[in-house]
Amino acid sequence: MNIIAISGSLRKDSFNTALLRALPALAPEGMTITIADISALPLFNQESEAAFPATAQALKDAIEAADGVIIATPEYNRSIPGVLKNAIDWASRPWGQNSFAGKPVLLMGVSVGKLGTAVAQSHLRQILNYLDTQLVGQPELYLGPAQELFDGAGSLTDEATKASLAKALEVLAARVA
Amino acid sequence: MNIIAISGSLRKDSFNTALLRALPALAPEGMTITIADISALPLFNQESEAAFPATAQALKDAIEAADGVIIATPEYNRSIPGVLKNAIDWASRPWGQNSFAGKPVLLMGVSVGKLGTAVAQSHLRQILNYLDTQLVGQPELYLGPAQELFDGAGSLTDEATKASLAKALEVLAARVA
Amino acid sequence: MNIIAISGSLRKDSFNTALLRALPALAPEGMTITIADISALPLFNQESEAAFPATAQALKDAIEAADGVIIATPEYNRSIPGVLKNAIDWASRPWGQNSFAGKPVLLMGVSVGKLGTAVAQSHLRQILNYLDTQLVGQPELYLGPAQELFDGAGSLTDEATKASLAKALEVLAARVA
Amino acid sequence: MNIIAISGSLRKDSFNTALLRALPALAPEGMTITIADISALPLFNQESEAAFPATAQALKDAIEAADGVIIATPEYNRSIPGVLKNAIDWASRPWGQNSFAGKPVLLMGVSVGKLGTAVAQSHLRQILNYLDTQLVGQPELYLGPAQELFDGAGSLTDEATKASLAKALEVLAARVA
Repeated sequence: MNIIAISGSLRKDSFNTALLRALPALAPEGMTITIADISALPLFNQESEAAFPATAQALKDAIEAADGVIIATPEYNRSIPGVLKNAIDWASRPWGQNSFAGKPVLLMGVSVGKLGTAVAQSHLRQILNYLDTQLVGQPELYLGPAQELFDGAGSLTDEATKASLAKALEVLAARVA
Repeated sequence: MNIIAISGSLRKDSFNTALLRALPALAPEGMTITIADISALPLFNQESEAAFPATAQALKDAIEAADGVIIATPEYNRSIPGVLKNAIDWASRPWGQNSFAGKPVLLMGVSVGKLGTAVAQSHLRQILNYLDTQLVGQPELYLGPAQELFDGAGSLTDEATKASLAKALEVLAARVA
Repeated sequence: MNIIAISGSLRKDSFNTALLRALPALAPEGMTITIADISALPLFNQESEAAFPATAQALKDAIEAADGVIIATPEYNRSIPGVLKNAIDWASRPWGQNSFAGKPVLLMGVSVGKLGTAVAQSHLRQILNYLDTQLVGQPELYLGPAQELFDGAGSLTDEATKASLAKALEVLAARVA
Repeated sequence: MNIIAISGSLRKDSFNTALLRALPALAPEGMTITIADISALPLFNQESEAAFPATAQALKDAIEAADGVIIATPEYNRSIPGVLKNAIDWASRPWGQNSFAGKPVLLMGVSVGKLGTAVAQSHLRQILNYLDTQLVGQPELYLGPAQELFDGAGSLTDEATKASLAKALEVLAARVA
């Protein structure tokens, strides 16, 4: 079971990317999780579709080859980052070739505040429902405050969060199977 | 009265950019409308804030110098384009220096389908309310189908749409005054 | 295959209720569709849960006994009607006894305007994803203008709409099976 | 300065209603705050508009007579309660007689969980922007956990919350003036 994971933050020390890095150790047997790189994508421009950018095609190929998708996102201005939406826009194109179609998807997010990216994820749910994914509704993962969950090296140390993540990965696995 | 206009599409022949180009001829006396360029912005990365990119700073300066803002957006995957959100994310940063604060804002969008970007604008309304703008609620401008409103050269020719836009610009002007 | 259908409008001549009435004739073999009555529900009050109202319990029982759910909703003030949300609130309670959990759900809506209830359905998608349903993402059914789809007796006469609905019912049936 | 306040919960011991009861003691001089009763409204049915229900007309009259509106809402199923939406639907009707038009509106919500009704308020912001209100964007009031803010008698005792509310009421007052 091959899962692709996408972080909505490009920051090297991003808590959301750190969250994704913690997942393989918590995953059920047989699940491999690979983090995609969305930092080199150009800004989406429909004119560029004729010669589809290699970085965008690589993202599409990785999603299509995967059995499921995990997205961990920060919340910027009560929505998802433009960076993440830009990646989704590329992966949904060209018309009729939406790479997310039919994929089981699990969402999560961690923030330094108490909302845990809940509002951002509400936008993301609408987008991914439109993209015809099999979107996990429960459990929701609105995690934080981030600074209490990770150690100084960016390793997830909070046991309750680990248990929540392990359980959520089992739900995702059941959707894939 | 100096208005900055932002298009959510980078496509040269974008209907939404064409919509913005039609506005000066419909604007009330004393209103000038300048279209911002968001195509050269890097993907937002919080690490880059220390040396704030010149293109992002130029966008912030233009918004702060303006008396009001107009955004015309396409709808991608039932939300706003990543490209537009990326521009908004830059303009809202660094923390405590949100360039949109207090600005009157008018939204519009045109699509080839019948929804006229209504769902995308619903996300944009949440984002801009968070950014503490004075957001025009009525009239809503869900325009289209695009191919019936513009001629082959990209000029807005539909008289009813022109009248709607002129009226909306007056509402914006009243918010600025 | 037993489907329960809920209309977001209480109006006797509601186009959305008329849409639901048109479905049995378009349904795949073996699918029966029964319209629920939500007009007699009290306004939700958590204090009333101890003695759960009979009308609310009947709605819960009907949803739980069904293999899938169809909701047809008008759009009121860019969201779903309070009447429909009130029915959903009852069916989701008491805590831990959400009657929608795991159910395949198909959404549709018809309006006299061109938006076809798209914005209302975007709220409904968030709500139903939270309620852990298996929510059909595609096709979307944003139908209208209503007055061109039905005859004076409230019968659906538009052939393209009938074909769209028949196809959507097959997608729902595949989720149930 | 006459403010009408609406609670999204009908429960007698509702934390959100308790929040509204705490406001007069925190309000700037000259601001009076009256809590509306929405518990006796019928479920909205467009057929009933011809003989507009007295309870609904009373709500409309109270909103129209007010200089501003405060809404405190719980979150049910990641949206606002049906009960609150039903009240808004009545107040927005009949067509062309939206009682909220132009009113300054302040939102708040308290929950036992950590989200503080943020997702519910995101729906409410879309609805109220459509209804052409002057919606306060900042500060946002996502309050909780409720059980730590109130004493056993339902009195707000948390000093930080009181200070936040007092500041928000000043922002509302500035919009009214």
